[in-house]
Amino acid sequence: VTGSDERPTERLPRIAVDLLGGDDAPAVVVDGALRAIGADLDLELLLVGPTAVADEVVAQLPAAWRERVSTLVANRGIGMTGPVAGGADRRTTIGSAVLAVASGYADAMVSAGATGPIVAAAVMALGRVDQVRRPALAVTLAGARGPTVLLDVGAGMQPSHADLVQHAVLGAAYAHLVAGVAEPRVGLLTVGSEPGKGDRLRRSVDATLRDWPLPGPASYLGPVEGGDVVTGARADVVVTDGFTGNVLLKGIEAALASVADAYPPTVVPRAAVLLGVRGAVVICHGAADGCDVESGIALAARLVRTGLIRAVTELGKAADPAVLAEVNP
Amino acid sequence: VTGSDERPTERLPRIAVDLLGGDDAPAVVVDGALRAIGADLDLELLLVGPTAVADEVVAQLPAAWRERVSTLVANRGIGMTGPVAGGADRRTTIGSAVLAVASGYADAMVSAGATGPIVAAAVMALGRVDQVRRPALAVTLAGARGPTVLLDVGAGMQPSHADLVQHAVLGAAYAHLVAGVAEPRVGLLTVGSEPGKGDRLRRSVDATLRDWPLPGPASYLGPVEGGDVVTGARADVVVTDGFTGNVLLKGIEAALASVADAYPPTVVPRAAVLLGVRGAVVICHGAADGCDVESGIALAARLVRTGLIRAVTELGKAADPAVLAEVNP
Repeated sequence: VTGSDERPTERLPRIAVDLLGGDDAPAVVVDGALRAIGADLDLELLLVGPTAVADEVVAQLPAAWRERVSTLVANRGIGMTGPVAGGADRRTTIGSAVLAVASGYADAMVSAGATGPIVAAAVMALGRVDQVRRPALAVTLAGARGPTVLLDVGAGMQPSHADLVQHAVLGAAYAHLVAGVAEPRVGLLTVGSEPGKGDRLRRSVDATLRDWPLPGPASYLGPVEGGDVVTGARADVVVTDGFTGNVLLKGIEAALASVADAYPPTVVPRAAVLLGVRGAVVICHGAADGCDVESGIALAARLVRTGLIRAVTELGKAADPAVLAEVNP
Repeated sequence: VTGSDERPTERLPRIAVDLLGGDDAPAVVVDGALRAIGADLDLELLLVGPTAVADEVVAQLPAAWRERVSTLVANRGIGMTGPVAGGADRRTTIGSAVLAVASGYADAMVSAGATGPIVAAAVMALGRVDQVRRPALAVTLAGARGPTVLLDVGAGMQPSHADLVQHAVLGAAYAHLVAGVAEPRVGLLTVGSEPGKGDRLRRSVDATLRDWPLPGPASYLGPVEGGDVVTGARADVVVTDGFTGNVLLKGIEAALASVADAYPPTVVPRAAVLLGVRGAVVICHGAADGCDVESGIALAARLVRTGLIRAVTELGKAADPAVLAEVNP
């Protein structure tokens, strides 16, 4: 796999940005968009939101950069408690941004809106990768001993056995292509490092993963514990259900924030990637600030440039176990 | 409830200590026992283990303190991967210690051994509190804004709806009597603070707890998130399943350890209490050092002095919802 994407090579990566997503939207999104367009001169933004807000971004840009920004008008936001189905409505910023990606007009989207509507809209409009029943949200923690990809952190609350096995495959591909891990070691999150620990789901997934072909240079190392997510010393990819992953991530964030003097902001992920859909979707924390949104846009650009979505889609097509072993993302 | 216990008032609290439990036993347990007997002059220890190890403790004590120490001989330890049923064998230190509590010869037990065998032995030998089907392991985190009792952290991997409701009752009683929280606010751990978040189990338990009579001054505040466990700002008691609680606790510990300069050792709990059995059982971390074991012994003494087990047992007897509302632990 070369990592090339299907978009014409002469075009810059174009990232759709939801201007109305997040607790402090649109101000923080405007700030993040301005930062991103200045930080990466090989990037285009598609601002998705009310004309007045998009114009506010454009007005603050030097004239030479304005041609890298375009606007897709959508006037409805979806609050953090809004209906999940709202993401399918193209009058909403989430709905419009997803459709822009689905049509190929944008290469990726970034939103700090509510996870539920974004995931629902992405599944409907982009479709799932073959063999993937439920997508997973993945974050990368920058531990002292290396990055750790943690998934799922909140897309699905009650995954099946097959979901977790498929998420191990997706996480391994992501760690290799995007997080830069040469030979990803994949662990299954449970309550002890010895086999047989945890609930029924973990015990059966652990048994399956021992013989499951992971993509390319990745390998399954076995059960890992909550602390292994922080340091990056044992595992490069940690697989869990979205309930446990979400609780753990928020606990780690709060623990680091509680000792703010030593707080290394780079440890905590600023944006999550939705893996398992046929398009690049980045979700920032609802409490994101401008720097977080900028990081989310940079991550989206990296997804496009590494060809992650195409690689993952090909993994899905080739997901016969015998074939999967041959796939090197 | 007066907090008095059933043991004769003239006798000092007598704590059974498992000399062979923990990764670094017996050395760290010997160290912890010596520290405890010197730190609390109103305490007796029952050393449970090989004679030679117990004699090592006694030999290091000033003569005046030796009368507060006795020995119960048991020569078998149970490794961290030993069979769960091993705890029922009275030749093991865990089995002997639990039986000493069950018979009333000791008032509480402390072990840094494997959780599974300790829980199994405690349920068998001590029995469960009425209305409690599965006990829960509870820890107290000392957040900047106050203590937070987190349960379960590993006794049960797949609790039922009724188990989590009962654990809310146990946690509230524990927070009030032992952690010193005047009016415990009880939260249910999930992925968002709005109602309706999380998996089916959390949604149904949340609905039940809204109308469930918690003991005395406690009240149910609703859903809480992983970060709320760290600060103590929102909830005094956080209820979850043992899988999620274990993963979260280890993640918080590792996050704090990763910024060791600012590491406040008091935030992380050194010992857990098994709630829901008819006896006082304290479990230290397998990697406990002497100070941790000393803390575990001090916690066990506090359980005895506050009359927690008796209060919890009475809560169980009175656990008809209409009656429960009247119970002030």
